[in-house]
Order: sequence, then C-alpha cells, then structure tokens
Amino acid sequence: MSKITLLIHCPDTSGIIAGVTSFFHGQQGNIIYIDQYVDRENKVFFMRLECEFSEDLKLDRLKQKFGASIAEKYEMTWKIASAEAPEKMAIFVSKYEHCLYDLLGRYKSGELEVEIPLIISNHDKLQPIAESFGIPFYHIPVEKNRKSEAEAKQLELLKKEKIDFIVLARYMQIISGEMIEAFPNRIINIHHSFLPAFAGAKPYHSAYKRGVKIIGATSHYVTAELDAGPIIEQDISRISHHHSIRDLILKGRDLEKIVLARAIKLHLARKTLVYNNKTVIFT
Amino acid sequence: MSKITLLIHCPDTSGIIAGVTSFFHGQQGNIIYIDQYVDRENKVFFMRLECEFSEDLKLDRLKQKFGASIAEKYEMTWKIASAEAPEKMAIFVSKYEHCLYDLLGRYKSGELEVEIPLIISNHDKLQPIAESFGIPFYHIPVEKNRKSEAEAKQLELLKKEKIDFIVLARYMQIISGEMIEAFPNRIINIHHSFLPAFAGAKPYHSAYKRGVKIIGATSHYVTAELDAGPIIEQDISRISHHHSIRDLILKGRDLEKIVLARAIKLHLARKTLVYNNKTVIFT
Amino acid sequence: MSKITLLIHCPDTSGIIAGVTSFFHGQQGNIIYIDQYVDRENKVFFMRLECEFSEDLKLDRLKQKFGASIAEKYEMTWKIASAEAPEKMAIFVSKYEHCLYDLLGRYKSGELEVEIPLIISNHDKLQPIAESFGIPFYHIPVEKNRKSEAEAKQLELLKKEKIDFIVLARYMQIISGEMIEAFPNRIINIHHSFLPAFAGAKPYHSAYKRGVKIIGATSHYVTAELDAGPIIEQDISRISHHHSIRDLILKGRDLEKIVLARAIKLHLARKTLVYNNKTVIFT
Amino acid sequence: MSKITLLIHCPDTSGIIAGVTSFFHGQQGNIIYIDQYVDRENKVFFMRLECEFSEDLKLDRLKQKFGASIAEKYEMTWKIASAEAPEKMAIFVSKYEHCLYDLLGRYKSGELEVEIPLIISNHDKLQPIAESFGIPFYHIPVEKNRKSEAEAKQLELLKKEKIDFIVLARYMQIISGEMIEAFPNRIINIHHSFLPAFAGAKPYHSAYKRGVKIIGATSHYVTAELDAGPIIEQDISRISHHHSIRDLILKGRDLEKIVLARAIKLHLARKTLVYNNKTVIFT
Repeated sequence: MSKITLLIHCPDTSGIIAGVTSFFHGQQGNIIYIDQYVDRENKVFFMRLECEFSEDLKLDRLKQKFGASIAEKYEMTWKIASAEAPEKMAIFVSKYEHCLYDLLGRYKSGELEVEIPLIISNHDKLQPIAESFGIPFYHIPVEKNRKSEAEAKQLELLKKEKIDFIVLARYMQIISGEMIEAFPNRIINIHHSFLPAFAGAKPYHSAYKRGVKIIGATSHYVTAELDAGPIIEQDISRISHHHSIRDLILKGRDLEKIVLARAIKLHLARKTLVYNNKTVIFT
Repeated sequence: MSKITLLIHCPDTSGIIAGVTSFFHGQQGNIIYIDQYVDRENKVFFMRLECEFSEDLKLDRLKQKFGASIAEKYEMTWKIASAEAPEKMAIFVSKYEHCLYDLLGRYKSGELEVEIPLIISNHDKLQPIAESFGIPFYHIPVEKNRKSEAEAKQLELLKKEKIDFIVLARYMQIISGEMIEAFPNRIINIHHSFLPAFAGAKPYHSAYKRGVKIIGATSHYVTAELDAGPIIEQDISRISHHHSIRDLILKGRDLEKIVLARAIKLHLARKTLVYNNKTVIFT
Repeated sequence: MSKITLLIHCPDTSGIIAGVTSFFHGQQGNIIYIDQYVDRENKVFFMRLECEFSEDLKLDRLKQKFGASIAEKYEMTWKIASAEAPEKMAIFVSKYEHCLYDLLGRYKSGELEVEIPLIISNHDKLQPIAESFGIPFYHIPVEKNRKSEAEAKQLELLKKEKIDFIVLARYMQIISGEMIEAFPNRIINIHHSFLPAFAGAKPYHSAYKRGVKIIGATSHYVTAELDAGPIIEQDISRISHHHSIRDLILKGRDLEKIVLARAIKLHLARKTLVYNNKTVIFT
Repeated sequence: MSKITLLIHCPDTSGIIAGVTSFFHGQQGNIIYIDQYVDRENKVFFMRLECEFSEDLKLDRLKQKFGASIAEKYEMTWKIASAEAPEKMAIFVSKYEHCLYDLLGRYKSGELEVEIPLIISNHDKLQPIAESFGIPFYHIPVEKNRKSEAEAKQLELLKKEKIDFIVLARYMQIISGEMIEAFPNRIINIHHSFLPAFAGAKPYHSAYKRGVKIIGATSHYVTAELDAGPIIEQDISRISHHHSIRDLILKGRDLEKIVLARAIKLHLARKTLVYNNKTVIFT
C-alpha cells in the first residue's frame, strides 16, 4: 500500500474537484482525504488530497500523467509527494536551549517523524545537548564581516546531508537571501512575539514596556523581510502587571517550543501551502 | 443563481468523492465548497458540499436524481437543502435574560440569518424583553403534575409557526421524549458547565466546591439522556480561588451566550452532522 | 456598614504596608481585601485596599486623617472612594450596535452596577435601541470642520449629567485633547485588534492581509496618542485561512463586546490603576 | 540579605493584616510581597507574605517569636520557610517520556530551581534518559501482590535522599495511603483530562467517545481518593472530529508537560496553599 499527498493551487474555475477526483479514481487510487479552499477575493483554488494505491505505485508515472492532463488543463501549481518518505531536517541554534531540548525530546520519543542529520550553531554552548541525544553538531561561528563565509559552510553541510528543510530554533542570526533562495518556504522560524506586534529584537522587553495583557509566539516561513514571512502557527499566554521581563521570557519559552513544534508537524504532514505571503493550513 | 447544501454520511468505500463531484458537475453545478471526513474506526464517510447552479434550479428534480443514482449506490443518509431559505427558530427561556438579550441583539443587527416567530417561557418575567424586540411571547406555565399539558400547547404553537428548530436559552425545564422526537437533533441547549463535568443542576456550585481552575459552557443537541447529547461547541474561562459562586455565575454568562450563539450559527449554516451521539462540525 | 476602596501608588520603601494597615486598624476599620504590587524596575509601590467600618463613617474626616498622616509620610498619590456610590457612565456610539446591545443588556439585568444617564452618537441609527432600553439618546453630528462645536455640546451634556466616565462603544471618531483632559484615564475605548498590532483604521482588513492565525480586541484608556493608551484588557480568538474579512468582523464582534464589558467592570470596581502608561489590574 | 516566605490560614477576624505586617516591621523586616484572600463562605483568612531581612536572620528565633505572638493570637496554621533553600524533588515515571524530557530540560537549563536526587520507575525503559541527564535512576518493579514491598523500597530511598516532594510524571501506579501520609500535599500528579471529567484510566479514549470539543490536563496534589485531590493547575486544547484517539494523546502530551511544569513551579515558589481539598494559588 502506497500513499501520496497532493498539494494544488490554481485559478478558480468550475469542475476542478470533479476533474481531480476522477483522475485519481481512474488510476485505481482511493482518496482518503480531501480538503479544499477557495480564496474568493483573488479567485484562487487550493486543494490538499491524500490518496492510497493498493498496487505498487509508479510515482514518476503518476506525476507525469497528472501533469500532462489535469495540471495542465487547470494551470495548476502542484506537488505530489510520497507520504512515507521521512524528510531531513536541520536545526539551527544559538544559545537558548529550550526549543532544542523540546525538539530532540519529541524526536527521540518518535513524535516527530523526521530525520535530523545535523545541528548547526554559531556558538558551542549547546554541543553537549546535541551529543547527549546523539546528533552531529557543527559549530560554525558567525563573525561580523565574514557572514558569507559561515553561510557557505552551512550551505555545503546542508547540501551534503540532503537537508529538506531548516528549523531556526531560536537561532539569533539574520538569514541571508542566498540561503532563503536555496530553501524557499522551507526555513521555519519561531519568533517570540505575537506578530506583527513586536517584530525584531527584544520583543518581551517591548511587550513589557507597552503593558500588554497577553504575549504570544509566532512560527513562520522565513522570507527576505525580517519577521514578515507567511505565518504557520501562533499562540498566546495571559500575563499581568506582576510579570517582570524575566517572567515574560520564562512564560514565553513554553509558547515558543509548543508553537514551533506544531508548525514543524504541519510542515512535515504537508498541510501547509504558501500563497501571497500567507499560508493555507489544511486540517 | 441558486445554492444548495448537501450533507452525507454512508459506509466508507472508494470512489465516493469522485462519484459525488462528477454527479454535480454533470448537473452543471459548480462545487464551491467541499469538506469530507472519514471515521476510520467505524468506517463511516461524511461529507458536506455546497454547489451553485446558474440556471433556475429544480430542487425536487435534483434531489430525485441524486437519490436514485449516487445516494442509492453508496447507501447514503443524506440531505439536500436550499442554502437561501431562512430557518424558523423558536426560543425557550425561563428567568435568565443574558442569552435572550444576546440572541435578540444578534438577530436585530442581522448577524443571525433566521426568523424568530416566537419565544416561549414558563415564566412571564422576560416578556418585556421580547416585546421591546417585537417578538411574540407566549407564557406557558409548567406545573408539576401537568407538564404534558404545557408541552401539548408548546407543540401546537411550534407546529402552527412551522418551527424548524428550538433553542433552549437557559430554559430550566427537562424536555420530554415526545418533544425530542418531534425535533430530532433540532433542539439546541446551552449547559453551563464543561460537559461531561458537572452535568445536571447547579454546575457552578459544583465547580466551586471541586476547586477547578477553569469553568466552561457546552452547547449540545438535546437527547433523551440529560446533558448527554451530541456536543456542538464548548468554550472555557480561567478562574481562581478569588471567584465566589456568584463570580462564576457572572463569568459563566459570557461563556454561555457566546457558545450558544456559535452553536446556532453552525446549525444554521448546516455545518453540523450528528452520528453516533457525536457531531461532525464542518469548517 | 460602610465600605471604602483605597488606591495608592508611591515611591517604594519599607514599612508602607504596616503603616497603612495599622492606620485603618486604628480607625476601627476591618480590612477585608488587600492587594499590593511593587514595580521593582521603577521602585514604585502600588496598593488596593477595601476596608469596612461598622459605625457611621465620616468619609471626609477619614480622607483628611489619611492624607495628613500616612499619605504625606510616604508621598502617596492616592484615592479613597465609597464603594457603594454607583458611577455615572456615558456611552458614545456610531453605527455598530453589538457593543451597545451587550452593555444595555448587562445594565438591564443588573450585571453592571452603574447609572447610564445618556448615550451620545454622531448618527441617529441606534436611537431606537436606546429608546427600547429607555436611555436618553443625543444625536450630535460631527461635521468635518466643526468638530469642536460638537464636542462642546458633548461636554456640556456630560457636565450637566455629572458623568464620571465615558465608554466608547465602537465610536468611530477621534477624541480631542480637551475631552481627554476633562476625563483623564476615564475614557474607555474598545479597539478591534490585538494592540499594538493593527492600530488605527480597518484592523480586520490588515489582519486578513497579514495572514495572522489569531485576532484580538483591546480595551484601553484613551490618551492623546491614537490606540496607545494604557491597556486594561485583551482577548483573542483563533482564525484560519477559511475566514474572510467579513468572518473576522463577525468573530471580532464577540471579542469586542466581552473585552469591553470586562474592562468596564474592572474600572467600576476600582481595580485599575494607571501608571507610566500601563495599568495595574488588582485581583 | 535573607528572604523568608510565610503561608498562613486561620479563622477570619479583624486586625490580622495589621498584626502580621506590624510584627515583621517590628523585626526590621521589609515586606516585599503580600497577597491575601478571605473565603467568606467558610470565614477563613489566607495570606502569603515575602519579607527581606538585611541583617543575618535567625530563622529559628523568628519562627519562635511569630509562633508565640501572632500565630497563637489568631489561631493560625502557618509555615515560615527560607526562600533560598532549594527543595529536593523526586520524579516517578513509568514508560511515557514526554514529561520526563520536559522536566529534565527545564532543570538543566536552570528554569527549575530544584535538586533532583533521583528518578524512580517501575520499568527500566526510561533509564537511558535519566542517564543522559546525569540523574540517578532506580528501577523498582511493582508486582501485583507485592506492591507494599516496592513502596517500602521507594520510601527508604526518598528518606535517604531527604526528598521534599514527589512528582508523578505520568507514573501509572496508584499511590498507597502510607506514601500519601508521608508526603501530605507534597505529591504532585498530572492527570491527562480536564478533571473532574474523565477521572481514572484512559481519559483520552473517553473524551473521544463522548465527542468533546476541548481536552484538558490537570495537575493536583495526590490524596487517598483517585484523581480527586486539590487542583493546582489546569489547561485545555481545542480538538475536532478530525482528531483520532492517537491525535488526542499527542495533543494531550503538550498539555500535560506544560501544566505539570506550571504546577511544580507554583509549588516550588510556595505559592500553593491547600485548604478544604482546594488550593489557594497566590499570585
């Protein structure tokens, strides 16, 4: 039994759902999940579909047929992927350990179905954690005027390990355009505020100063503009005047790790689709 | 332009989605929304679909065709309804006014697309509110040993006004089996606890006594077993030891009115489907 | 039995709590509630205290004594108020009715212990609602180049009715500096976003465009800078890509009315204290 | 500089706050925090106070004086503790690792100011995790008819290591009365439901079957009655019909670890006070 996941967006018109479902039915596939959405303002159709094939599936052949018939007819941007193949995830960290501990704990207990070939950091502080979980750790310092050098080393490692996507688990460095182009909508960041409030540095300090009654965390795909990429997931926590900046930072940690983990799971399940700098999150 | 809503459940098998969508495509319909779900444990398929027809739609003819072809083939329990026809809602109240004010305010401001031909109460306390909103109010006292008499009067009124569904907006009486049979999955109650915790009378008192840190409200369809019907919507609110029973009651009011209104909106949009004493809530 | 509420802030030093509590003990008062907070960063002490007196209380005398002894010693900014006297609240509205319906429903059912001598609006659309609840309604149009004229009329009415504080229940006009000075920290606004995100006009449109996964509402005291006053209360609601701008507006209504009502209740209970453009909210 | 924490409950009467604060003022203490609460129904007074002493504090002497004067006068149940001394926490686990990973990650990063002298388990599955964090792990199997033997070993270890309190981090065994008596209100459990709903075994299965729209987790002190002890903290997460039992279990894990950690932090900060099988949680 093989299972594939299909993600589509295309101009909205009539007959798409019937066309797509008939296609898979005709290929002896059993559609076990379909979720669809139409952005009426921009007249765009979105769909996610899971389909099972009982015989040995020729994935390339299926892709070719789908591309030549349905996809072309409806001018689709589309992607068919085998649902079984685990993706390879790289984790970038700096000095904060809470997201790293959380991700590695989930990984070890089988909650995250992913491979983690490497952890990259601009500091060596978290190396012992990586080691205690048995994950290779690469310390690549980022010096002020030699950022591109560091990034070249990172890219080389990512390429060598055939990394599919990158998670910035409180990696406190700005990602260059070159890296973003190499991993379009495949770099997931966790920002420690309820975006678009408090973008940029020291959001807990700003939240404290403004006197908000709720803080948040936001996981998003990284784009060229800082903290402005498509939002995958957000969550919040109530605070009061009793909370010092240090309290906000501590409370925020829990938000950050939960929100980041949820975003990664959505990405792994191929339930995220980016369009117009926003995400469609399928159920 | 006519729009219909289709709700289905049937034994899960392959080809249903393709079959249904092809049917509507063949009838020159444009499917504008589809949401589907499979209960894998019980092998049941669920679907909600909205379809637009540009020509004058013969609804009866469409139903007949669908019934004779797709529905029969897949042994479906199904319902096709015109999405335009507003439903007729009766409100039952006792002495608490917060849900009534909330519903009538939403109704008057056009937020609830529904007709409200009547309000029924076992007390006359809220009659002035009904009058100030211009809704007919019927005071039908419920005496201990003459409940069936009162209910006969209620049923007569409901029949006369062709009521589609009933909302118990803190109506503090138990509904008889006869009434429930007359409106199966069409009586919506709001219970002032996070069910199944604190079913029955005085849930805020029980919550206070137990020392919970969160209270809730639950809207559900009424079934023969008290407070045990299919849950449509729930929400919660944090409390602390500072809150007295009276505080819980006050905080709970806001929960009750919001949760009840959400449940009514889901029902009106035909986004609820009951199966196995649970609801499928389509997005 | 008389009850008073005391609000204090002053430079932090040792002995304040003992000093204050001993004072009230010495006046035969029974302290039934005390909540205190120290802003360590700015070295400011805050306190709220409720005290009961069994004999006939001479409020003026108590104030005088407190002022001359404790308040002077610790350089306090302070306020003693009789907890029984209901405050007079004016409501300002434009064309949106949901907050108005909600406030008047709470008022009529005795949930808001307040007097509402008048409703002021720049439109006449909501006059029938005011009338159905029996509250005087004043239609004071605000014309572009004659805003000060309209505001003079408003101020005259507010003065005549001895209004204590103003609630802007989705009043879509900017409040002038003169009005703010006349009611310092006594004008409560509801803004339909999670401030500081999406300050200014059309926040739901901006939230939709940004693709946030959570929307919010914020109630704050009005200050000269638009949507930048001390925040009293905030709350949020989850959304998804399925929600159109219209959906956000509808979902937001529930947030707005709940958050505004909570803020008003806190204000009425004298549980809010403004300092440094932030609020201390006592429990 | 020394800091103490005082927890009190006693019959409510007038003058307690003034009495207590004057006492500490008289001892040259600086009260830096006070939170008080009166249960009016049962006429009980509760207080938590933090006080700093600039000179070398004689803790025993302070306790003696307080006991002989204030505590006796007001018939207080009270406890004064040095705020600096870290407590010793034992962790009990079975086979689920998510709470253990979470607690140890927090411990290692300095978030939990506690000592963890040992982890006890009825299985050896999680031994490698304990080892990777450098914490002694004791495998004490619990056989059906020899439970008291296992518990005797546990008690011996706990005594030897001078354990202050126990955390049941998804320890799937019922705790005996003897153990509970040895650690009254000092055994913290995490139950994977929103108590009192779904007490006992397999709460996620029950939640799925009932069709609730929200699941929860509850941390409470262990008492003789199963899952009925004083609740310290609860939180919830929204679910839908899409979630299978496995999904609930996965979503629940995040709730469990967050709620348990919050409860432990409250306990460590001595912000919990048990009375009448409920908790007062100070801010």
